[in-house]
Amino acid sequence: MAVKVHILGSGSAKPTATLTPSSQVLQMCDKQFMIDCGEGTQINLAVMGLRTPRLDNIFISHLHGDHCFGLIGLLSTWAMTGRTRSITIHAHPDLEKIMNPLLNYFSTDMPYEVRFNHINPLKHELIYEDRTMTVKTLPLRHKVPCCGFLFEEKQRPPHIQKEMIEAYHIPVAEIPKIKAGADFKTEDGVVIPNSQLTYPSDPPYRYAYCSDTAYNEKLIPLIEGIDCLYHEATFTDEFESRCKDTMHSTARQAATIAQKAHVGRLLLGHFSSRIADFTPLYNESKQVFPNTMLVHDRTTYYLKD
Amino acid sequence: MAVKVHILGSGSAKPTATLTPSSQVLQMCDKQFMIDCGEGTQINLAVMGLRTPRLDNIFISHLHGDHCFGLIGLLSTWAMTGRTRSITIHAHPDLEKIMNPLLNYFSTDMPYEVRFNHINPLKHELIYEDRTMTVKTLPLRHKVPCCGFLFEEKQRPPHIQKEMIEAYHIPVAEIPKIKAGADFKTEDGVVIPNSQLTYPSDPPYRYAYCSDTAYNEKLIPLIEGIDCLYHEATFTDEFESRCKDTMHSTARQAATIAQKAHVGRLLLGHFSSRIADFTPLYNESKQVFPNTMLVHDRTTYYLKD
Repeated sequence: MAVKVHILGSGSAKPTATLTPSSQVLQMCDKQFMIDCGEGTQINLAVMGLRTPRLDNIFISHLHGDHCFGLIGLLSTWAMTGRTRSITIHAHPDLEKIMNPLLNYFSTDMPYEVRFNHINPLKHELIYEDRTMTVKTLPLRHKVPCCGFLFEEKQRPPHIQKEMIEAYHIPVAEIPKIKAGADFKTEDGVVIPNSQLTYPSDPPYRYAYCSDTAYNEKLIPLIEGIDCLYHEATFTDEFESRCKDTMHSTARQAATIAQKAHVGRLLLGHFSSRIADFTPLYNESKQVFPNTMLVHDRTTYYLKD
Repeated sequence: MAVKVHILGSGSAKPTATLTPSSQVLQMCDKQFMIDCGEGTQINLAVMGLRTPRLDNIFISHLHGDHCFGLIGLLSTWAMTGRTRSITIHAHPDLEKIMNPLLNYFSTDMPYEVRFNHINPLKHELIYEDRTMTVKTLPLRHKVPCCGFLFEEKQRPPHIQKEMIEAYHIPVAEIPKIKAGADFKTEDGVVIPNSQLTYPSDPPYRYAYCSDTAYNEKLIPLIEGIDCLYHEATFTDEFESRCKDTMHSTARQAATIAQKAHVGRLLLGHFSSRIADFTPLYNESKQVFPNTMLVHDRTTYYLKD
């Protein structure tokens, strides 16, 4: 199934003329998942003309303003425009304490429910599961408790070889059993092994979001071989000492994680307002991990058709 | 002195691709005054490249999110970028109760002081005064306590007729006294009346911001003859009943207030996301008050040279 990510904001704490604070919407398994919700998120949704009929979950990496100040505006606008479906916000428990007084003051008579799923950013664990996919936390190293998120499709059942259905006159009722792994017995009593009747579906797509974090090798086994890694790259090499002080990553460090984890592709974001020229940032990443892309705000990236 | 207004956002509650929530910076008497601070205010400051070295006062008309959700982001960014000058926020007392927990959580070690001046939006009174100007509240009619703001220059002292200084050999030390109204006595004992030595300075510039409000004739005497009125015009005539329900104004109603108050010019803003075509809105205002202008986001209007 198609996978795409809509980058709403890829800036860091201080907005610039082109960079708004962090937020993105991942579209996967026909559902939408918002990751972080910095100031301007609802504005960029409007600018992109992006509707969110399948957005029922928001994941907040950590409680710095550039990752969550857009929540109150988004939730208020949804209240005003008649949303009725509940929304679940997966975040550090403090977020509920912060948001509830705001919601009570600004959005009396909420027409929908806001649920908070308290997560522990220090643990790598399952925080969301449905029929087709899962989301797990990825502990990161930052100034406040912070985690990334790993979105994984579940392995879909194998496909049936259509020509076999015809060849062996397989009744429709048998197909779910074969998809689940059963062999097929013909009227003559011949057993056709499952492996001859099916071929495997695509391997499950896996996408990870890792922002904000200092260089963190503990991430590597958790994201080994995933299809796409979105990793923060706040600074170029030039700002390495500032990067260390603020517990962020350089583009080169992000690329090193991508390379060591053998990921398919690397999207870089969360750029500092100090970066005037993005060429060194791109080059420093590319030297280590060629399949690098720098994201732009208000842009959709098609990850899988 | 030059007067200009930087429109950061002129939208209403729901942002659109072109309209962000309310905020503007009035530049008057060489100072900057922010009026309202909806989500995206700090982003639009960055987009406009507008620096705010003389911004020490923020005026919040009322506590609906589209007029104040940008505050926490702006104050946090200032904290992070080393602001040291205190800021005064003039607003309904509830704003302090809302903001303090947010500031305590997100901006520990604030390098500057945030002062709250509690205002009573139901009264017309002086809430700010300095050497050159005053700000007064303008009670409005809205769903929650809400006021506009009247910014008035003080009358500056008269100018000295330069040719009189030469003609009567007036010493420099006498000039402040003459500016303050004194006559001048020549060495021969002849009294030159003040009126012959001076000519009046420009009349004080007056600017009023009125948003959000239902049609409100009580405003008229309070803004009689001012130079520029910024008035909300959320709807066209077509939406008159919705306008009434939501306690907003149509463009025609805004123009009627402008016309009855004999203001110099009318700036219209706070447009509903339902307005797809702005031509009727403009025309409906212009029919009643010709000197109408519809503002655009991220645009500066030069009101006086």
